[in-house]
Amino acid sequence: LKQTKNIGLRGISVADTKITMIDGIEGRLEYRGYDIKDLAKSSSYEEVAYLLLFEDLPRRGDIVEFTERLISEREIPDAVHNHLMNRPRSAQPMDVLQSTVPMLADFDPDLLEETREANIRMGIRLISKTATIVAAWSRIRRGLSPQKPSRDLPHAANLLYMLHGREPDGETARDLDVCFVLHADHSFNASTFAARQVASTRAHMYAAITAAIGALSGELHGGANTKVMKTLLEIGEVEKVRGWVNRQLEQGRRIMGMGHAVYKTTDPRAIILKDMSERIGRRLGQTKWYEMTRLIEEETRGQILKSKRKEIYPNVDLYSASVYYMMGIDVDLYTAVFALARMAGWVSHIIEEKFAEAQPKPVMYRPEADYIGRYCGVLGCRYIPIEQR
Amino acid sequence: LKQTKNIGLRGISVADTKITMIDGIEGRLEYRGYDIKDLAKSSSYEEVAYLLLFEDLPRRGDIVEFTERLISEREIPDAVHNHLMNRPRSAQPMDVLQSTVPMLADFDPDLLEETREANIRMGIRLISKTATIVAAWSRIRRGLSPQKPSRDLPHAANLLYMLHGREPDGETARDLDVCFVLHADHSFNASTFAARQVASTRAHMYAAITAAIGALSGELHGGANTKVMKTLLEIGEVEKVRGWVNRQLEQGRRIMGMGHAVYKTTDPRAIILKDMSERIGRRLGQTKWYEMTRLIEEETRGQILKSKRKEIYPNVDLYSASVYYMMGIDVDLYTAVFALARMAGWVSHIIEEKFAEAQPKPVMYRPEADYIGRYCGVLGCRYIPIEQR
Repeated sequence: LKQTKNIGLRGISVADTKITMIDGIEGRLEYRGYDIKDLAKSSSYEEVAYLLLFEDLPRRGDIVEFTERLISEREIPDAVHNHLMNRPRSAQPMDVLQSTVPMLADFDPDLLEETREANIRMGIRLISKTATIVAAWSRIRRGLSPQKPSRDLPHAANLLYMLHGREPDGETARDLDVCFVLHADHSFNASTFAARQVASTRAHMYAAITAAIGALSGELHGGANTKVMKTLLEIGEVEKVRGWVNRQLEQGRRIMGMGHAVYKTTDPRAIILKDMSERIGRRLGQTKWYEMTRLIEEETRGQILKSKRKEIYPNVDLYSASVYYMMGIDVDLYTAVFALARMAGWVSHIIEEKFAEAQPKPVMYRPEADYIGRYCGVLGCRYIPIEQR
Repeated sequence: LKQTKNIGLRGISVADTKITMIDGIEGRLEYRGYDIKDLAKSSSYEEVAYLLLFEDLPRRGDIVEFTERLISEREIPDAVHNHLMNRPRSAQPMDVLQSTVPMLADFDPDLLEETREANIRMGIRLISKTATIVAAWSRIRRGLSPQKPSRDLPHAANLLYMLHGREPDGETARDLDVCFVLHADHSFNASTFAARQVASTRAHMYAAITAAIGALSGELHGGANTKVMKTLLEIGEVEKVRGWVNRQLEQGRRIMGMGHAVYKTTDPRAIILKDMSERIGRRLGQTKWYEMTRLIEEETRGQILKSKRKEIYPNVDLYSASVYYMMGIDVDLYTAVFALARMAGWVSHIIEEKFAEAQPKPVMYRPEADYIGRYCGVLGCRYIPIEQR
């Protein structure tokens, strides 16, 4: 068996990027040179989206203008609204998001203008309108009317407002804002790579974002946060965590939320989310979900260290599950909320893929595969007409 | 500048495959061991789809049953039909296809069953229903009622029937059937790789197909056939071809339909399509489009050989353009027709990605990138609060 196969492309560098730096050994993450810890502490999703799109932090006038542009793009076309109203209520949120993004393309006057500026305009529309779509769907499927977007709340607070039909308290709004900052980009992860790959064929912005949404929906990627919460609900009690972890590992099953392709230490985002989960739990007098998650982390680390002599660490999905749960977000909506936050990153990567002045110039991603199937010699297998088979 | 970067992943093998073999030097293409020339001559799209999905040629009973299954899946859900009726008529066909595929997921009872059999059932539904969607959209956007699918015509003939509202003649039906055979798979091309990449996250079949549709829409990939025909219409006359080619090359522009990432000789599919284009042209007494295409090929090859001392060959998109045009298919529908044919290949690759018993086991595709952006040292750039910027 070949050891040279580039399984999952791990460790294979496929491009240069100026967007995000990950140091998997030191557990560091920077957007455009700025440490995720500083951004989580002092920045906002609006500022981070600006930083990712425009390559530097905004000045005061810039952020005022950018925020206004985002707010002005919150309404969705009537056609998309009507589509949501007619969708079967059992439709999965990620399927709904994946099918509505290409509908937005119908209405974008910049669709076929292949300039950086036009793509930034499309990106701003996508950031704003997808939040409205996800929130509208969350209400429509429960038989509620969609809540019209706020004209003044920040992006994350507006999402909670549209989900729940009432303004969130300041702490919850700020916590979700921090979640959005933490999820905004993560370099060449599977969904971002899918977006870049589609963009590399010169497909338009919406086609590329739609591919990214598909990749994020998988449980090995963004689907993990929903899976973690389902697990917590299934286990049900702090006392049952150890037994559950042991059974999973004995059966050779994966523990969702644990382990990462790039980090060989704790994901810096997980540290921040862990604190947040504990803090929200204390505030609500409901620390159970945090305690259970912490036990999953501890027990999994301990067991893997003992049995495989290797370290395993929590990733961004482990603690975001309980955080979203305590914010009152539907469990099957977590991956869509992840998609909304990652929108700024995806858009920035598509723009970099299309317009970066790199040498050698980027070309369409088109790998090869080793053919190991049927082989009948240089003329191929003999085709026998169906009557003689 | 690095020479080691894996630009576009060219020449990088990312997996083993048993589906399709391409010999780019000899110009050979085999599906499951069978030469494309034999399949184009003696097989049908139904048989090729069976071959790709079930790994061997069907016997008579198998193909009867498989054909019946395909026919029984041609109807689309009312919700999708109604969506198409309400879509703005200016919507691009590939955007329409990309947004309706995730809607089909709403109605698939096998959606969350992660078995090979369930994925084959989903694949059969996708092959049949996407043809109905594309044909319906082609009529609806012109203000016509969609044509209900035939209950007995083969797949390609049924597409022409649904597009034009009348049964095609036998020769045209067989020609499109051959086009479908030729387009059914092409190993790890950009759209198939996008599909496999999304499937590698354990996203469902529909999410992965939707990503592939996005990748195919790009003009460097499936969008090229539409681009070729637009070019032919723009040039307008055989006499103007040489001048046009020379101007394009002088300005350093790409000639769509010429050149391929893998073939270093003529694409075997292009040879068959070239003959077909000439034959259809003679039958219709309208050889102009074939002659123009042939001249683009000759002139581009001659010029590139002279200026760059290298050979360039036609690819599958060069002659499919005039073929589809003479069949009366709308120019902006060619890429969607390509998608319909490629559906069998995409589905087979998604199944291989999810269920192949390979060692080492496939994991999620997650490449790396070299960070070349802003760097302020091991602590990151200093975050300055907005008031002080």
